[in-house]
Amino acid sequence: MPAADAHLIETRLSGEVLVRGSFLTLQRDAVRLPDGGQATREYLNHPGAVAIVPLIEGNGGALQLVLERQYRYPVEQVIIEFPAGKLDPGERTFDCARRELREETGYAAREWARAARLHPTVAYSTESIDLWFARGLTQGARRLDAGEHLDVFTATPRQLLDWCRDETITDAKTLVAALWLDQWLAGRWTLDWRAEQDWAAAVENTATS
Amino acid sequence: MPAADAHLIETRLSGEVLVRGSFLTLQRDAVRLPDGGQATREYLNHPGAVAIVPLIEGNGGALQLVLERQYRYPVEQVIIEFPAGKLDPGERTFDCARRELREETGYAAREWARAARLHPTVAYSTESIDLWFARGLTQGARRLDAGEHLDVFTATPRQLLDWCRDETITDAKTLVAALWLDQWLAGRWTLDWRAEQDWAAAVENTATS
Repeated sequence: MPAADAHLIETRLSGEVLVRGSFLTLQRDAVRLPDGGQATREYLNHPGAVAIVPLIEGNGGALQLVLERQYRYPVEQVIIEFPAGKLDPGERTFDCARRELREETGYAAREWARAARLHPTVAYSTESIDLWFARGLTQGARRLDAGEHLDVFTATPRQLLDWCRDETITDAKTLVAALWLDQWLAGRWTLDWRAEQDWAAAVENTATS
Repeated sequence: MPAADAHLIETRLSGEVLVRGSFLTLQRDAVRLPDGGQATREYLNHPGAVAIVPLIEGNGGALQLVLERQYRYPVEQVIIEFPAGKLDPGERTFDCARRELREETGYAAREWARAARLHPTVAYSTESIDLWFARGLTQGARRLDAGEHLDVFTATPRQLLDWCRDETITDAKTLVAALWLDQWLAGRWTLDWRAEQDWAAAVENTATS
């Protein structure tokens, strides 16, 4: 891969907010293209998000995953996905992951590992999602947001992969999480597990750029 | 999993277009929640898209993948991704995949297989992406859209997976494509390869809902 990217990079000339919704802001910028021309770029400003792969390790070594079923209005379907949520202003991605896991499923986790950052829609959203794994779960009470309705259930890694193959699962962050889970379980990729209190004490940047 | 989803489903009460951009339309709907309450849902209307995994099978059996490097303004980074693009009005996803592969890389493909549909952002976009595989490539001329600048290069499946692990690749559709490629190469998932002319002649619905 070439190291110099000057022939690709676009630079901002001006920008305007097209509309400020209650959680989405649509922005339009004029940009200078690498060939000297101009173009407009429309995109959503998004605060960033997290997704969590919660692992329940059974007595016999059988692994269970905590998943959710939630109606997603834009795609008009009940979607199977891992717990996820948006960052609050200034919130670190670990704090958000711990909060969302607790709020949506009731679980607290003894150990956490940060797998990777992904970008769901590079063409029109600033959103990044930090993918976390959690294990050593203990059950508490759920605290869903107002207007939030979702089912929590468990499945095996084998079931998860079958559902990724047959399009029962179509949610991109959950499919990416399945890639990570499969590579980790096969011993090909590693996860840096640390105790919850170590992550809580660590200096970590927020996902917002 | 429970079969009855009445306790999850939201129904549309009314809707308005907040803003109609040049390619994105931001919509706000009032919805009836499953518990009888009301909420608003903001989301983008998107025409749907495709992504393509183009395979070059070498003489010694070495497999190469065709990838792109493109500056993605919303995330302010040069992003490594598989060729992709939006559906034109009324366009079938196969026709879009064949067109985008040709426009962005110059390649035509002898055989195609449709892997799966995914949803990059179920929370705030109607977008679905149909993931296609292509092989038997022959090189022609690129025809980039106005204002489109991108590099085309090749990599091995091993390099692709390494880059998925170390966050060189963060684009969700490309990460999902890596899951499909890895499972297919391992013989765990199958792809239904058909000749280009068979797909071209097939009756296929568009990805738009």
